[in-house]
Amino acid sequence: MGKYVYKFFEGNANMRDLLGGKGANLAEMTGLGLPVPRGFTITTEACTRYYQDGQTIAPEIEEEIYKVLKETEEIVGKKFGDPENPFLVSVRSGARVSMPGMMDTILNLGLNDEVVVGLAKLTNNERFAFDSYRRFIQMFSDVVMGISKSKFDKIFDSIKEKYNATYDTELNAEHLKEVVSEYKKLYKAEMGEEFPQDPKKQLMEAVKAVFRSWDNPRAIVYRRLNDIPSDWGTAVNVQEMVYGNMGNDSGTGVAFTRNPATGEKKLYGEFLINAQGEDVVAGIRTPEPIDRLKEINPEVYQQFVQIAEILEKHYKDMQDMEFTIERGKLFMLQTRSGKRTAAAAVKIAVDLVKEGMLTREEALMKIDPKQLDKLLHPDFDQDELKKVQPIAKGLPASPGAATGKIYFSAEDAVEAASKGEPVILVRLETSPEDIEGMNAAQGILTGRGGMTSHAAVVARGMGTCCVSGCGEIRIFEEEKYFIDKNDKKYVEGDWISLDGSTGNVYGTRIKTKEPELSGDFATIMEWADEFRKLKVRTNADTPKDAAQAVKFGAEGIGLCRTEHMFFEGNRIRAMREMILSRTPEQRKKALEKLLPYQRQDFEEIYIAVEGRPVTIRFLDPPLHEFLPQDPEAIAELAEEMGVPVKELENTISDLHEFNPMMGHRGCRLSVTYPEIAEMQTRAVIEAAINVNKKGINVVPEIMIPLVGEVKELKYVKDVVVRTANELIEKAGIKMEYKVGTMIEIPRAALTADEIAKEAEFFSFGTNDLTQMTFGFSRDDAGKFLEEYYNKKIYDFDPFARLDTTGVGKLVEMAVELGKKTRPDIKLGVCGEHGGDPSSIEFCHKVGLDYVSCSPFRVPIARLAAAQAAIRNKGKA
Amino acid sequence: MGKYVYKFFEGNANMRDLLGGKGANLAEMTGLGLPVPRGFTITTEACTRYYQDGQTIAPEIEEEIYKVLKETEEIVGKKFGDPENPFLVSVRSGARVSMPGMMDTILNLGLNDEVVVGLAKLTNNERFAFDSYRRFIQMFSDVVMGISKSKFDKIFDSIKEKYNATYDTELNAEHLKEVVSEYKKLYKAEMGEEFPQDPKKQLMEAVKAVFRSWDNPRAIVYRRLNDIPSDWGTAVNVQEMVYGNMGNDSGTGVAFTRNPATGEKKLYGEFLINAQGEDVVAGIRTPEPIDRLKEINPEVYQQFVQIAEILEKHYKDMQDMEFTIERGKLFMLQTRSGKRTAAAAVKIAVDLVKEGMLTREEALMKIDPKQLDKLLHPDFDQDELKKVQPIAKGLPASPGAATGKIYFSAEDAVEAASKGEPVILVRLETSPEDIEGMNAAQGILTGRGGMTSHAAVVARGMGTCCVSGCGEIRIFEEEKYFIDKNDKKYVEGDWISLDGSTGNVYGTRIKTKEPELSGDFATIMEWADEFRKLKVRTNADTPKDAAQAVKFGAEGIGLCRTEHMFFEGNRIRAMREMILSRTPEQRKKALEKLLPYQRQDFEEIYIAVEGRPVTIRFLDPPLHEFLPQDPEAIAELAEEMGVPVKELENTISDLHEFNPMMGHRGCRLSVTYPEIAEMQTRAVIEAAINVNKKGINVVPEIMIPLVGEVKELKYVKDVVVRTANELIEKAGIKMEYKVGTMIEIPRAALTADEIAKEAEFFSFGTNDLTQMTFGFSRDDAGKFLEEYYNKKIYDFDPFARLDTTGVGKLVEMAVELGKKTRPDIKLGVCGEHGGDPSSIEFCHKVGLDYVSCSPFRVPIARLAAAQAAIRNKGKA
Repeated sequence: MGKYVYKFFEGNANMRDLLGGKGANLAEMTGLGLPVPRGFTITTEACTRYYQDGQTIAPEIEEEIYKVLKETEEIVGKKFGDPENPFLVSVRSGARVSMPGMMDTILNLGLNDEVVVGLAKLTNNERFAFDSYRRFIQMFSDVVMGISKSKFDKIFDSIKEKYNATYDTELNAEHLKEVVSEYKKLYKAEMGEEFPQDPKKQLMEAVKAVFRSWDNPRAIVYRRLNDIPSDWGTAVNVQEMVYGNMGNDSGTGVAFTRNPATGEKKLYGEFLINAQGEDVVAGIRTPEPIDRLKEINPEVYQQFVQIAEILEKHYKDMQDMEFTIERGKLFMLQTRSGKRTAAAAVKIAVDLVKEGMLTREEALMKIDPKQLDKLLHPDFDQDELKKVQPIAKGLPASPGAATGKIYFSAEDAVEAASKGEPVILVRLETSPEDIEGMNAAQGILTGRGGMTSHAAVVARGMGTCCVSGCGEIRIFEEEKYFIDKNDKKYVEGDWISLDGSTGNVYGTRIKTKEPELSGDFATIMEWADEFRKLKVRTNADTPKDAAQAVKFGAEGIGLCRTEHMFFEGNRIRAMREMILSRTPEQRKKALEKLLPYQRQDFEEIYIAVEGRPVTIRFLDPPLHEFLPQDPEAIAELAEEMGVPVKELENTISDLHEFNPMMGHRGCRLSVTYPEIAEMQTRAVIEAAINVNKKGINVVPEIMIPLVGEVKELKYVKDVVVRTANELIEKAGIKMEYKVGTMIEIPRAALTADEIAKEAEFFSFGTNDLTQMTFGFSRDDAGKFLEEYYNKKIYDFDPFARLDTTGVGKLVEMAVELGKKTRPDIKLGVCGEHGGDPSSIEFCHKVGLDYVSCSPFRVPIARLAAAQAAIRNKGKA
Repeated sequence: MGKYVYKFFEGNANMRDLLGGKGANLAEMTGLGLPVPRGFTITTEACTRYYQDGQTIAPEIEEEIYKVLKETEEIVGKKFGDPENPFLVSVRSGARVSMPGMMDTILNLGLNDEVVVGLAKLTNNERFAFDSYRRFIQMFSDVVMGISKSKFDKIFDSIKEKYNATYDTELNAEHLKEVVSEYKKLYKAEMGEEFPQDPKKQLMEAVKAVFRSWDNPRAIVYRRLNDIPSDWGTAVNVQEMVYGNMGNDSGTGVAFTRNPATGEKKLYGEFLINAQGEDVVAGIRTPEPIDRLKEINPEVYQQFVQIAEILEKHYKDMQDMEFTIERGKLFMLQTRSGKRTAAAAVKIAVDLVKEGMLTREEALMKIDPKQLDKLLHPDFDQDELKKVQPIAKGLPASPGAATGKIYFSAEDAVEAASKGEPVILVRLETSPEDIEGMNAAQGILTGRGGMTSHAAVVARGMGTCCVSGCGEIRIFEEEKYFIDKNDKKYVEGDWISLDGSTGNVYGTRIKTKEPELSGDFATIMEWADEFRKLKVRTNADTPKDAAQAVKFGAEGIGLCRTEHMFFEGNRIRAMREMILSRTPEQRKKALEKLLPYQRQDFEEIYIAVEGRPVTIRFLDPPLHEFLPQDPEAIAELAEEMGVPVKELENTISDLHEFNPMMGHRGCRLSVTYPEIAEMQTRAVIEAAINVNKKGINVVPEIMIPLVGEVKELKYVKDVVVRTANELIEKAGIKMEYKVGTMIEIPRAALTADEIAKEAEFFSFGTNDLTQMTFGFSRDDAGKFLEEYYNKKIYDFDPFARLDTTGVGKLVEMAVELGKKTRPDIKLGVCGEHGGDPSSIEFCHKVGLDYVSCSPFRVPIARLAAAQAAIRNKGKA
């Protein structure tokens, strides 16, 4: 039997898991001797028990709450339900980390028909007492009992109307008594019983409401997006009320120890005289800057500045504080590490080191790696942005800001870009044929498709701003215009702007500014590189991406997919010729045509990364992806290729697969058609020989995908080695190259000791490995995973964050088995997890050599790798 | 450096792995003092080296061969290439197990232009010498050098024509010299060099040809079908020639110690006077029964009978022997365990125990479990069968013989069967809607679809004879007739017969006889049950299958798939209503309609298995399988369901999945729609309550499919338990039931310790587990796996035989982890591997409790389980 309730003075900041962030900090402040209203915290474990016990509070916990309540009453010298000296409390949720979506606050709990009268007498302020009571009834009814707030607003408005009141403050005590009476009637009509008069019952219902709110849909979504396990639970803080609305010597406010937008070292906050917290939020009155407090009450201001300093030094971080002044006396209601922009996070971290408050390791731990993304993309000039309204909103598919002239086909986009125009490519949806156009564009706007549509995925890979699935505009690709929701028409060449972080589309040109990668950002990156053990490579298929990634600090390419090299321009024609070949000779002839393109691509990529290692994955997707599917396009292609339509249809139908993800792809293609591996080897090696002659020493790493059995790797490797060695010998130079494999099929992980006999490196393809380990297809799982999150079966998307329990076990096995066979085997990860901080920590722990991620994730990965190293320092 | 060549007297029967079956037995017979021509064996390891060394024979092995050759020459007192006293040899392949497709025999090796003259002198028979030489040239050219035999036949025929010879024997020595001369010319023209005159070169080329033949396509296919690893290799036997064609005191023959067709204990064989082995095979002269030898040479006959007895006693098994008599002297050329029919295998095993030659364990080991299948199905009356010719041939999709009247739709078939007619269902292809018709039919004939088509898979499951993919007939379903390859028309009601073991279709009625399951067969099964540790259950979805399986000795149902229960008749309508439901209420209403059907099904199944355990798997396939896909059928259904076509189309397109195998199916359906699990639980439990009332005590085992995470099992289990307990409580009886899961997703195996917290049993669904572990879809893999077999990457079909290396590792992990959490957890396998002997041995070794297989595999599994127990006796 544990302890489920802690008085503030019994806890401290280290008890965050048990008391929640808010509770732990209240306890810590209490311990520091700061002026904190007294109270207690019901632990997160009580919340967990609540769910275990079928959403009820166990009798022993209820008992403990009442016991501690009684002790607290004795300490404060007030009593629940005592009209002479009533104990009034606030009830607030507080999880380990701050979490929007959960129940926020109930104030004035403890009021009832009797106590309100007592309070009026005690404060000599009847209006204040009934105002407090009507607020409490409404909050309790809404938040705890689920009676819609609008119903209360309606009553309130009608009474205001009745008495010709424009502002709430124009209602007097009598009016407010009438409001209370109407509110209570509404409550009875809705609930079938009187508004609860027993403060203990009020309290227990409020506690349950907090626990329930842990599992409301918004909270669930937030948890998933932020990797918060559903079994953490929330704590409940019960705290003596203090009132900022007791006159002009009272007030309430929030403040940051530094500017959360810029990081500037200066107290920053807002303050409202004669008000309670909710008035600040409601936004009826405009708060004043915190500095004003200096004029109103210099003594309290001084006290607050001192406390702010104490807290920042104590927590070694910028603090976000709530306070209330009751009749000239300052009370601290909350402190926590303040949320901040990416820019502020970087500046504060660097400044705190300069100020000697933090070590560099500690500073690195203060920055959320995911935030860095914001610093890597262009952003709008904020002054200009303020002047315009969006014309439509789509999905924020790939971050950044872009402005340019609209074009409706990849060809037009490429042409315009070649003339130096900034281009926004507008398409209903994109397909692999659009790659060149997407590459040429500043931003991409699509009418259809979600966050994982082709446009979204490719744009994120490229780091290009993209708004996808913007159904609010109607796009006419052929006719080259679109219509916005106000029926305004935009034609080819018109300017628009996209905000890929919000999904907003603007119908005009807005100035953007390029990201600043020097200064504090560079300092943080430098420190990160110093501490991290993992190398960071990039996934890049084009010289442009490769160069971008190198600029972001990539130490090589971990995954260069070659399939894109088969799509552009004339290449797709040769590729299709290859697929339609009936004999190995025909196939070789078609492949001959692809060879010079691929060789050229590799040369450019080698040059872009300046001799850093490049891992090249051989052709992976099933061949049907290179052929059209709809009858019209098939007829067209048949004509173009000079084959009968029927024959082409037959080929396409022969290539049809029930489960293409598990079909004829990856190394299986090279087992059937070794000519493909041969051509790709030639392109890789000849390109390396060519750039070696230019003095760039390249060691290409050829990666065979989708291997499940060592003999299949051996088969393809033999083709590679034979071809490569012939070329190198013929060139008469000394050149190294490596042959390795993806570990992306469970059987490869399970037999990694065998596979390591042939593979010089493993790269974990955790996307496919996740699909096959879970047995669900990424393309299809979206439909049912939502229900899994709602029912708390999965806490997070295993495609975004590596499942360390299942998939991770396979990775660990493969690492162990691989090293047993080949102690110096090079190990990396190249799935999308390579850019996810929590997955990166796992990679660090299991001893991988590197992670590889899209160029714009490289800085994130560098920081995450450093954090992993710091967090796991000294661990085996 | 190993020893690669063994003289016969250096080896013995235990060295089969090294010397091959033939070589080991020649050595053993030599050791027993039997008359065996002298010689030596080049080991299987030499073959393996040959492949490792890039298809060359290493110098040290070549040297060793020559050294042993020289020693053998000294022993026999003859010499390679010595015209005075030539050493002539036969060269034969011999793997560990006899394997068709490999190079068979080269005779008379050692002959050349000089030696042939010497041989003529030595035998005083010039015709014999040149006949031998021309045979040798042809064999060597064909088998070793790959020159087509037909080219030699052409020369031979033209010379016969030239000299007006009808029979080969009419050619004299001069004619044969001309043949030799022409043959040598042909050789030179084809090979660009003279026929090799050096016997050593002849020998080395012949050895290489044997090694090469290990990898020819027929051999590869045979290995795969018979689970023979490609790395075993073949040995080569080099043996002094003896001649059965040296006159009427010579001859050659083959004999079995017992009748291989019936098992009767009586010497059985054929004998040909004045002939060599190849003449027997060529079939030009008809051999005489072995008894004739008693008349011709009673002494040699007696000697042979004695040797046969010695060999049978020595090997404790029926022997298949080859012998030659040269000028009245008997030589044994081969002995091996004789191939036999299933009936003979069973009889011989039982007889050998009765004769005291074998223990029951030993006898059980002599029978190939797979053979038993033949004994379980109806067979044609062989006398009647001899009188008819097939009208077409399709794929032997499901074994057995069937005769009946043809019907072209499931409904017609059901109706005819209900009148007591024997029915053959003829369809272009079958679909789930045809199940009832298939069930009513004696046999099924389809025009399209392979060995894994719907018709084939379902028919095998039912044990119903099926010929699939019979493209030689043209089927007109609508018009109710088919046309055979001779354009004969067969209309509804005509009699045909099917042989599901050969794929033959006969255009007439042929009497069939039912299988005989008593007698020796029953004895073997009884012994098997005595020794096996594994229980054997069956996969059965219908009362009929269940009853059949119980007759075959099934100890319960290991897998009762419930999806078929949604297809028949009105059910599919209710099922579709369920799928089209927009609200849980609508869905529940539709499910209500399905409930009585399912409950009835379960009652009948419980009754059929008479209280044995029944594992029931909840709905597994994705919902789109229950909806039509082609526009016409969609329009029809929309009309029937009273919904707009567009709406139905939308639902179908919403349900479309890119990779349905990894889609919204299994327990994922019940997570989304708990109503389904609820209805199924009601059907299972209510049925059990009903039969319990009739005195049959059932403990249903509810199996949740496709689980990958314990929480998802828990979610569905909670629905099951809540529903079940309510029903049981309401019924006021005491009843047990179990809830468990399939382990068919890699992640389930990896986290089996967690899953065992909720699962009372695991059933390994090795079909899906194989798909996901290998990362290939069974429906698609057929297209590329052929190439994998050809390239020796996989030796066998992992869907037919469990891959113990990869998939098996997951199974072992799951067993270990599962038992750690729940030591008494019940473990079984219910994939198709449950009926495969080598997979069954694996199941035994890893400690499963039972295997479950289709009804007709139950006897096979019982024997295989016994063999596994015997083979692994005393092992941990």
